[in-house]
Amino acid sequence: MERITSRANPLLGHMKKLIKDRSYRREKGEFLCDGVKMLEEAIKWGAEITAVLVSDGLDVPLPQKGRIAQVPPGVMESVSPMKAPQGVVFTCKIPSQERFDLQNVKTLLLLDGLQDPGNVGTIWRSASAFGTDGLLLTGHSADPYNWKAVRASMGAVFRLPVMELEYTDLKALCDQTGLPLFGTALRDDTEDLRSIDPAQPCILAVGSEGRGLSSELLSLCEKTVKIPMESGCESLNAAMAATVALWERYRFQ
Amino acid sequence: MERITSRANPLLGHMKKLIKDRSYRREKGEFLCDGVKMLEEAIKWGAEITAVLVSDGLDVPLPQKGRIAQVPPGVMESVSPMKAPQGVVFTCKIPSQERFDLQNVKTLLLLDGLQDPGNVGTIWRSASAFGTDGLLLTGHSADPYNWKAVRASMGAVFRLPVMELEYTDLKALCDQTGLPLFGTALRDDTEDLRSIDPAQPCILAVGSEGRGLSSELLSLCEKTVKIPMESGCESLNAAMAATVALWERYRFQ
Repeated sequence: MERITSRANPLLGHMKKLIKDRSYRREKGEFLCDGVKMLEEAIKWGAEITAVLVSDGLDVPLPQKGRIAQVPPGVMESVSPMKAPQGVVFTCKIPSQERFDLQNVKTLLLLDGLQDPGNVGTIWRSASAFGTDGLLLTGHSADPYNWKAVRASMGAVFRLPVMELEYTDLKALCDQTGLPLFGTALRDDTEDLRSIDPAQPCILAVGSEGRGLSSELLSLCEKTVKIPMESGCESLNAAMAATVALWERYRFQ
Repeated sequence: MERITSRANPLLGHMKKLIKDRSYRREKGEFLCDGVKMLEEAIKWGAEITAVLVSDGLDVPLPQKGRIAQVPPGVMESVSPMKAPQGVVFTCKIPSQERFDLQNVKTLLLLDGLQDPGNVGTIWRSASAFGTDGLLLTGHSADPYNWKAVRASMGAVFRLPVMELEYTDLKALCDQTGLPLFGTALRDDTEDLRSIDPAQPCILAVGSEGRGLSSELLSLCEKTVKIPMESGCESLNAAMAATVALWERYRFQ
């Protein structure tokens, strides 16, 4: 197995840039993952792994393809974005958007303007657990290939396709697929989440906590829905709202 | 109104110590909150506010009681735990455990070994939104009066009582109230969450993501329940699991 001991090795620089730079991730078509569990998930779900760094002496399952190198712990610490590195970092190809199948969709989840990558990843994980067909991101949401989003997704990054799009593309997607857009909001005409037919295919939209759904997005919504709660409680954390809305559909499957 | 310009003022030191030191919070019976929204919630729900610092020129609603002082922005920055302070920090009395009413309980939520204060606060918020009667903490969970938990609770700290207890006290509480303990887990005999009668009073227990419920806690559980999900997805984020479990009861109210 290859061994890298110099911190000047170009692979390390490449990985560090993948951690920090969204444009670089898009330019290279790759993203970085951290941790043994993530590597297991990547192999299990057939992700296209391009390179793996493993700390000396660590015994982990390794992919059949891609560059694999052992490194001393100090080198691992210099690359890993984690405070307490687990001893594995690796890079994967960003999946092609062709993975996104718009036929036979039952539920798509749309996140509008969610800027916290950890929140995006956590919701991605819930969406995957509750049988969602895909994740859509609008309104300058966090990059789903930010390592924090990838990590919080707990492998959903390898299972559930994600698409970033502009509002005009979203409108086209709704027109093309005939899927109605239901937005979580608090308006006079907002319906109880439980009144929505769980068997009706739709796109569910959840906004950021501070600002909710943008007016552009709300103007595309066929209806708005709310999660009923105790009086005096105005809202849930955005990830909780998204997860409850998805469960409310999934529980009837 | 009093004005504090010296960073050596003892009130500032007191506040900084409340931010950092769990033992000090218990010794003084106080905790620190940050932000205008939190202050509004504290006033709305009748929290016992002991002191408020407000940045010069900021117009915020103020409590009728307690010490109130204006400070220059630099002093605010030196006290606030936030990277971008909103201009208000204040201290409140930790509510008496007598607030915890064990009569007529429908649902108590127990968190076992949840060490992330943000997660504890987020779940507290969901529990308050979905009509839970109280929050129980066991197994060295994060301090609910840590400022991050308080902040993530979005005011639930002022609405929903919390109790930290040992396993032996939990057993006594179950015996005393007759409430069965249902733990979220994955065992051979684990039942689908939807099979639990939502009208039956109970204590719902959720464990940490990494370790789940402790064996001590599992031994106290009358039954274990799971949230069904897609194959290949082993788990949800702990806050998501707790919120879905609470919603599944609340949706029938």
